[in-house]
Amino acid sequence: MKRLSDIGEDSLIERLVHRLDRGGESGDRVVVGPGDDCAVVDVGRPGLYQLLKTDSLVEGVHYLAETPAAKVGWKAVARVISDFAAMGGWPGQLLVTIAMPADKEVRYVDGLYRGMNKCAAAYGAEICGGETSSVPDGSAAVISVAGTGWVKKSRYVTRSGGQVGDLVLVTGKLGGSIKGKHLNFLPRLEASRWLVDQFRIRSMMDLSDGLARDLPRLAMASDCGFLIDKKMIPRNRGCDLSQALGDGEDYELLLTVSRRTAAKLCRDWSHAFPALPLTVIGELTDKASGEALPGQLGGWSHFSASNG
Amino acid sequence: MKRLSDIGEDSLIERLVHRLDRGGESGDRVVVGPGDDCAVVDVGRPGLYQLLKTDSLVEGVHYLAETPAAKVGWKAVARVISDFAAMGGWPGQLLVTIAMPADKEVRYVDGLYRGMNKCAAAYGAEICGGETSSVPDGSAAVISVAGTGWVKKSRYVTRSGGQVGDLVLVTGKLGGSIKGKHLNFLPRLEASRWLVDQFRIRSMMDLSDGLARDLPRLAMASDCGFLIDKKMIPRNRGCDLSQALGDGEDYELLLTVSRRTAAKLCRDWSHAFPALPLTVIGELTDKASGEALPGQLGGWSHFSASNG
Repeated sequence: MKRLSDIGEDSLIERLVHRLDRGGESGDRVVVGPGDDCAVVDVGRPGLYQLLKTDSLVEGVHYLAETPAAKVGWKAVARVISDFAAMGGWPGQLLVTIAMPADKEVRYVDGLYRGMNKCAAAYGAEICGGETSSVPDGSAAVISVAGTGWVKKSRYVTRSGGQVGDLVLVTGKLGGSIKGKHLNFLPRLEASRWLVDQFRIRSMMDLSDGLARDLPRLAMASDCGFLIDKKMIPRNRGCDLSQALGDGEDYELLLTVSRRTAAKLCRDWSHAFPALPLTVIGELTDKASGEALPGQLGGWSHFSASNG
Repeated sequence: MKRLSDIGEDSLIERLVHRLDRGGESGDRVVVGPGDDCAVVDVGRPGLYQLLKTDSLVEGVHYLAETPAAKVGWKAVARVISDFAAMGGWPGQLLVTIAMPADKEVRYVDGLYRGMNKCAAAYGAEICGGETSSVPDGSAAVISVAGTGWVKKSRYVTRSGGQVGDLVLVTGKLGGSIKGKHLNFLPRLEASRWLVDQFRIRSMMDLSDGLARDLPRLAMASDCGFLIDKKMIPRNRGCDLSQALGDGEDYELLLTVSRRTAAKLCRDWSHAFPALPLTVIGELTDKASGEALPGQLGGWSHFSASNG
């Protein structure tokens, strides 16, 4: 009898995706379906596609019961905004679902919303509804944020547009997020807008599960392999290579561009974002000659028994 | 120290709504914010508003661990479609969030998706993504469905449009949903479309928590009181009045129309939907002269210690 822990998150999503029915009758057209940071839908708005995203935080998995509520709220919204940034877009409206035990303090929920509103306001998102539900006593709280966003039709970036020979770049520094950054990170919304407006970004995603898991996903979606120069990986202070690769929750942008684009991009970047590193860490290869990074180097997988 | 169980679901939502920031920068305009069945957003699509909705099912609250997975999946999607119907609209795209323990059988998740896809396909909705997450062992599973829908700008119906003197009508029969109907109910999508296309429906909602809780909500949103004729309330076989009022999960439409509209509506209805009752159960009054129905007659409230 197979359990979720036997197959892991990626396999589970793959199973589900194949079962999805495609056939909306609203006159909308799904441009990008499951498997990317957001779904992309043509809803008939001139020049723009709609982005759809849902993301949840589970107590005991993504945060601890003793974590200050406002920080949890910030994180819940910031993760969704990071996914809009990963597509080259920006947020529109958000809906918030809170499922928690009835003995939770009202003050805690107030704190959650304070953090969510602060993050939404900082990034131009609008919380316009949601719902609350109880869970049985002793069950973990689940906070889920669903949102719409927008992206210019000519500028949206997926995980699957990478090409053999592209250089692989990453914003910021990796590793050690668990020491606090995962609760107050700044989604790379401004950087993403700048990138897609100025350059032809071939593929992009945000780093949520660690480079060691996320780069193989991007490469696979682009039907490529990859080579990385491990010495080049920008690490946060006090982090070794395996932490930079595997800790996860970096919420930095991982992107690929042509070599020609990369030269100009790196020059212009340092003027536009002097305080934020942008580092070339490797390249996309054909599938046969890439390295086998996944698994061995860690990274976070839901349902996997071998986390860590 | 106040806990969620001390204040109940309605008060909680009211607290949160007052804290919500309004100020999206996407050029969209929120037409109806929190507190109705869906949020309504003007996204610049000619003739149509977008509807936004999120709704979750919690194991042990909305269904049992031993409930067949496909039925749980049907219910999860059908509840969201019922909310689109409640506004006079129809569904577009759906995103599915599944948070469950890693020891859940893969077969169970397959069944969930089978049920969700069946319901989505039956009502013209399109599942275009979502995410999966683990919850700590022993925690209740949470299934959340977020969706976009559409409604004609000239036809959307809220809870707040009722007027003194309106007649109050309900589709179908009430009570006893727990015996099975709550798992395989048919959202009143077709009936709702017919109603809003043919008639001026002043206010509408779907009955999820029982008439005894939901009618006061509609009346309050419309700044009215209400009088109902308890003998007129259509009951499912084997249900007494208190069950018809308080069981909840009926997923029928509750609506109000002017007296003049009601006469023609009831005649035409029986030709259009011969198998589905539509019953006048009362009227909206001014606030001072209505009856005090809530509380005493039951109905389901999350977080309330006095459910039953």
